[in-house]
Parts: sequence; structure tokens; C-alpha cells
Amino acid sequence: MRLRFYNASILSMEDRNVTKGEVWINDKTIEYVGPSKETDGFDEQIDCEGNLLMPTFKNAHTHSAMTFSRSLADNLPLDVWLNTKIFPMEAKLNFDHVYWFTKLAIMEYLRNGISTAFDMYMIRDASNKAAIESGFRISYVSGANDFGGVEELEEEYLKHNEQHELINMQLGFHAEYTTSKENMMKIAALADKYKAPVFVHNSETRKEVDECIGRYNMTPTQIMDELGMFNYGGGGYHCVHFDDKDYEIFKKRNMLAVFNPCSNLKLSSGIADVKRFIDEGIDISVGTDGAGSNNSLNMFRDLYLACVLPNVRGEGNANIDPFILLNGLTSVGPKYMKLEDARFIKAGQKADIMMIDMSNPAMQPVNSIVENIVYSGSPDIVKMTMINGKIVYKDGEYLTLDKKEIIENCNKLVQELKL
Amino acid sequence: MRLRFYNASILSMEDRNVTKGEVWINDKTIEYVGPSKETDGFDEQIDCEGNLLMPTFKNAHTHSAMTFSRSLADNLPLDVWLNTKIFPMEAKLNFDHVYWFTKLAIMEYLRNGISTAFDMYMIRDASNKAAIESGFRISYVSGANDFGGVEELEEEYLKHNEQHELINMQLGFHAEYTTSKENMMKIAALADKYKAPVFVHNSETRKEVDECIGRYNMTPTQIMDELGMFNYGGGGYHCVHFDDKDYEIFKKRNMLAVFNPCSNLKLSSGIADVKRFIDEGIDISVGTDGAGSNNSLNMFRDLYLACVLPNVRGEGNANIDPFILLNGLTSVGPKYMKLEDARFIKAGQKADIMMIDMSNPAMQPVNSIVENIVYSGSPDIVKMTMINGKIVYKDGEYLTLDKKEIIENCNKLVQELKL
Repeated sequence: MRLRFYNASILSMEDRNVTKGEVWINDKTIEYVGPSKETDGFDEQIDCEGNLLMPTFKNAHTHSAMTFSRSLADNLPLDVWLNTKIFPMEAKLNFDHVYWFTKLAIMEYLRNGISTAFDMYMIRDASNKAAIESGFRISYVSGANDFGGVEELEEEYLKHNEQHELINMQLGFHAEYTTSKENMMKIAALADKYKAPVFVHNSETRKEVDECIGRYNMTPTQIMDELGMFNYGGGGYHCVHFDDKDYEIFKKRNMLAVFNPCSNLKLSSGIADVKRFIDEGIDISVGTDGAGSNNSLNMFRDLYLACVLPNVRGEGNANIDPFILLNGLTSVGPKYMKLEDARFIKAGQKADIMMIDMSNPAMQPVNSIVENIVYSGSPDIVKMTMINGKIVYKDGEYLTLDKKEIIENCNKLVQELKL
Repeated sequence: MRLRFYNASILSMEDRNVTKGEVWINDKTIEYVGPSKETDGFDEQIDCEGNLLMPTFKNAHTHSAMTFSRSLADNLPLDVWLNTKIFPMEAKLNFDHVYWFTKLAIMEYLRNGISTAFDMYMIRDASNKAAIESGFRISYVSGANDFGGVEELEEEYLKHNEQHELINMQLGFHAEYTTSKENMMKIAALADKYKAPVFVHNSETRKEVDECIGRYNMTPTQIMDELGMFNYGGGGYHCVHFDDKDYEIFKKRNMLAVFNPCSNLKLSSGIADVKRFIDEGIDISVGTDGAGSNNSLNMFRDLYLACVLPNVRGEGNANIDPFILLNGLTSVGPKYMKLEDARFIKAGQKADIMMIDMSNPAMQPVNSIVENIVYSGSPDIVKMTMINGKIVYKDGEYLTLDKKEIIENCNKLVQELKL
């Protein structure tokens, strides 16, 4: 199957430049990017009408199936929200819940130009099925903690890394505050055995950091590093309350810091010092977190806020370069999701591509396409999402998902969960 | 012309309840809201398929034609941005610029379910033409200041209040920091003559307030009230840096406080204490401000941030009721825009109605429709916008605007402005 996109504007994300030209897809891979050449030998040809092709977003931290909890328990601090609302409902979740609520999340991801979820959640066989049927990528990260998941981690890790081309898995665990030192050491041993990076919620709230210091006289980053968890790198989700030594560790270990500003804002967790991470040269990306705390999976809103919310941390403007954050979301994150080959619009890369509707008024006038996307983007500007060479969303229609069935099942299942 | 919406969910905004039923429109007015009755005698019948009808948003503070400056000069403090970037370009604006860039803004407004702009800008004959041709409402407010507009204010005020059913005008001026006491007194005299409210940028930055205190030993709110400006009420845009006496004045004078969180965030102006205004019982609404500082006219983003951004003002969550902000935007703002009869989905009110696409994944599951809209809404969920009984936007199509022509003209004109 060969597909030709022509009359396109192209933001390859290898640099800031936007070029005019064509992108050819051969099966799952980008075959050619450049000026118009041949018009023969294609199975399908799509006139982009000047619209923009760019790499998809890779949602660098989320809990997909948590769509069940959207608008269910708003305006609570993280610990109260987790302990009194979320954990009791999560205890009731079965295969069907995770399957249908992951499908609902995927619907929202596709509208946002997201091709991949770096997804920390349970009952992975159910989300696997949802992702594979949808043609969507999941890079799992374990949410193991003292309540479960540690013993099964190795088996799960091996299984999900051999299962399907759209699925892979990373080592990880929920957080220091839910995981004993003994369990953290088991995870560190696995990291050592597989020479693998470890990903974890890290320093989301002040309370979490203070309590960790109380236990270990070290921050979460420091105790985890001390246990050898980051000998092969890894990353942290949230990264709100960091001290100088934490930054040093992230730098030394070549780790990824993922920002989740909407969730932090809603739960009053604080504001990450995005500028400091950039100035330190640490790799960064952005995630939506789950729909329970965000409450949407609107990647554009998190991208925008990661860029402008740090302005209120101190006096004056943080002056964060919007390209660096956009690049984090399209092209840096995937380095940490075993998707080195799905980062750019470039021959040889996987065809994970979105089309931005340049006729959307929010994208006009074209003083700067990158600034327009970061400061004025919303799901409304996404015209098409292609994953692994397959168009899965176009002009409001889902080509691999049954919208009506998903919505009916999700509403039925959430009513049962609330009983 | 009689139109029947059936199979609808209805959020009238008279209260929080969502009902099932029908909405009939007779010419420009809502004729009936309630359960299914007749099916004969209609010129058009629209099956809502369970989607939600609710009152449109009324953008309570904006500078529509500033779409020219989107992504043009980002990340500067307010005073530098205005003086070095915006004012020099605004000096070059002519009828064509304001006409086409207002049309571009209206395209974006319609996608956001906005029926009315409380619009402070110049060359109003041009924006009039754009609004009337589009079937869009503008409630002007004067941006008079020491550089112009004060002498013409009375004539403009009278003209735009008699001109067209979609257009009206309020007294106002740009801000204390751009307007001498002498000119402010002239405006106060007009307020007295016409027993009219006055609207103005107020306490947007700390610097503005401090300098005003330096000049008058009073805050902007206090000096303006002292001059008799608010004897017949009015309102303030931004309202970020208020003291106790300022709140008292807003309360005593029954004034509207309009929040512009995206603009404040981008320009590092501070965060309004939305909760305090609510607790004081002051009327509130939300505006996008202009596209130069926001940078989008995504009303959902400002609504969301007005609700959650105050969480970072202090310790803990501000616990702002999302319904109060939604109500401010649909139904409180219009009281101050001479649109008392365009506030609710209710017989006798003007038919300014939007349809929310309940099959959008961000609106699912339906744990709470109001929370879904405020916390997860985006232009992507707006299926239809009706203004004054006329459908002007539906399923991505503009029924009164030529998208291609607008985009071409705006790009041509902005290139000239940049020379």
C-alpha cells in the first residue's frame, strides 16, 4: 500500500522550518519527503490543500481507562481524591471497564493527534485489545506498588514487549509514597537485570516530597537513584517539587521529565519549573495524566499550559520557547517509549502523522505556525491522525472505532461502578 | 420562519438541571421549551439526536480585530508588548484591516459558541459591517484615551445604539494609565448625562495599580468611582490586583468583573481572585481578551482557567463552582451588554443558542454535563451556533462567512502591516 500526500505544508520537527511538498507512505513507513516528483504507482493520493503535516503527539503520561472518573469527583487535593474517590472505584474495575474506557480515551486521543499513550494502568490485556483494535500505540509503564504488581512485573514486562508491534512496556512503579523500600529494591533489581530505564510518579506534591524526606532524609528522586533505579535512565511524571540535587540526577542519568500542568492545576499540586529543566538541558515532554484529574485528554491544553503556566511561578515571564515543548511532545518523548523511529516526518521513520487544518481560524494569520499550534491549538485543528501508516481519524470520523457502541457501554458501566 | 429542535437535551441555564425535550424558534425568538407536542407548522425541523442545547457564550472582553497580532510578538510584559509592538502596528490600521480581521475573529467566535463580543476596538464602522454581514452581535465599549476617542465618544455612543439590532454600545475608556483625569471627568459627565454604566480595563497589572496610587493615592477603581464614573454601574476587565475597598465599590455599584486568565497568564499579569468576587456576590463573567495576548479566542480555555487557575494563588484548592462561571459567560455577562433577553433557553428570549456534541469523547461519560463542559470543553464540542434565530455555524461550516476569502485577505493585509 503506497499513499501520497501532496500540496502539503510540512513541519518535520527536525527543526522549526515549514516546507512545502509531499510525503509518501509505503505500508507503515515514510518513504519520501520533499518536492513534487512522481504521481504514478500510488494506491491512494490525498490533496492536503496546503494543510500541515507534522509528527503526532505522544502523550507522555496518562492513565487511559480513567475516563470513567471524568467529572466524578472534582476539586479535591490529590491524597483525598485518590483515597476516598478513585481507589475504591478502581478496586471494582474489571476487563470490560478497562477495555471500554480505554477505547473512550483513544477516541479522545485521536482527535488530539495523539498516536501513543505512555500508559500506567491495570488489566493491560483489556487495554491491549482496545489499542490493537483501534490501531493505536500503547507504551505501558508499570504502576506496581505495595498493593500489587511488583511480583508480576517481570512476567508482564516480558509479555508486553513481545506481544504486538503497537504495544511495548517499560519498567516502572506507582510512586515512592505507595511503595516500600523493599519493593523499590525489587524493581531496581529488574532494572539491573534488563539494563532498563524506570519511570515513576515523582515529586507531584510538596507533601509527597516532605514525607519522603521524613522517611529517608532524601527526596523521591534521590532515594530512588540511591537504590540504583536509574542506572539505565528512566523518567519522572509531574516533577513539580525538585531541588538542585534532583535536577543533577535527572541530568546525569539522561532522564525524561514529563509535565502534567492541567492535572497539577486542578489538584493544586504546584507548578513545575519547566524553564529550569530546559536550561539544565534535561529532556522534557508533556502528558495529560488521567481524565479523572485533568479532566480532559486535550493534549493542546497541557502543551499550552506547560509553556505559559510557569509564568506565574515568580516575577516576570518564564520565556519558554514553545518549539522546545512542541518538540518534547512529538519527538523527545518517543525516545523513551521505544519509538526512536516515530519522531520526525522523515524517510525511514514510522508513519505516525497528523494533519493540522490550516483553514481553522485559530491557525490564522500565519505569523508563526509553531506559535499558532502551541498558543492557539485545540483538538478542533486536527484534521487527520495516521498511526503506523493507517489513517485512523479523519474529519471528525473514527475509521477503527464504533463511537455509538463505546459511549453506550461507557455510560452503562460507569453507572454500575457508582453503585 | 418557525424551526423545531427535537430530541434535545436542554441546559436552560436558569438552573443546573438538564432536561429532555424540544425548543421551538419563531423568527428571532424562542417560542417554546418543553416536552414534545406538535410536529406540524414548522418550516424546518432538526433532530438533535440527544445533543445539548444551551445559551451561547457572550465573550465579555475582547478586541476582535487584534487577530492580526496572533503569534506576532509573544512573551513580553504588558507595557513592553503594547508600546513596542502593538501600538505602532495599530497606528497603521485602516477600514480593510479591521473589517477582515474582525471577520477572522468572528469565524473563531462561532466555532466557540460565542454569539456576542463585548468589543473594545477602533474603526467601528468596519467591524459593524463585518458583524452585520456575519449575523454576529457586537456590544461595543469605547477604548477612548488621551490619544483619541474622548471627543467623539458621545456621537459614537448615540450612533451605535441606533444603528442595527445586532449592534449596541456602552460607555467606556481604555484604562486609567492611558487617560488623564480631565478626560476621565469628561467620560464621567457622559455617564451622568445618559445615566449609563462605564466599562474599562481595571487593575490588570501590579504596576498599573501602583502607578495609579502614586498619582492619586487611590487605586484605579477608587479614583474612577471618586470621579462619579460608576454612579450608574459598569464593570472592569481583568480585575487582577484588587484591594478590599475595590471589592466594596464593585459590590455597592452592582458592577461586572470580567476575568481574562489566558491573557493574564501569557503576559504574566497575575491571577484574579475569582473566589473572592464570587464570595462577595459580585457579578462575574469571562472574556478572551484579544488574540494578540491570548493568543486564541478559545472561550473554553478561558472558562476552564478562570475556574482552576485561582488554585495556585495560595495553599489548597480555590473550590470554584464551575456552574457559576458557566452562568457568568452565558447569562450574567449579557445583562451588562444590553442583552437582558438573550440569557436563557426560555420562551420569550432571543434565540442565541449553541448545540454541544454529546458524542464528542470529551463529553463522555456523562457524570456531570456542567463539569464536562467547563473542565473538558473545547471548540471541538460545538456542533452549531445560532444567533438571533439564524444558524450561522454548523458542523464545521460557516453559513454567513467565506472562509477562503477571509484567510487570503488577512494574510495579505498582515504582511503589509509588518512592513
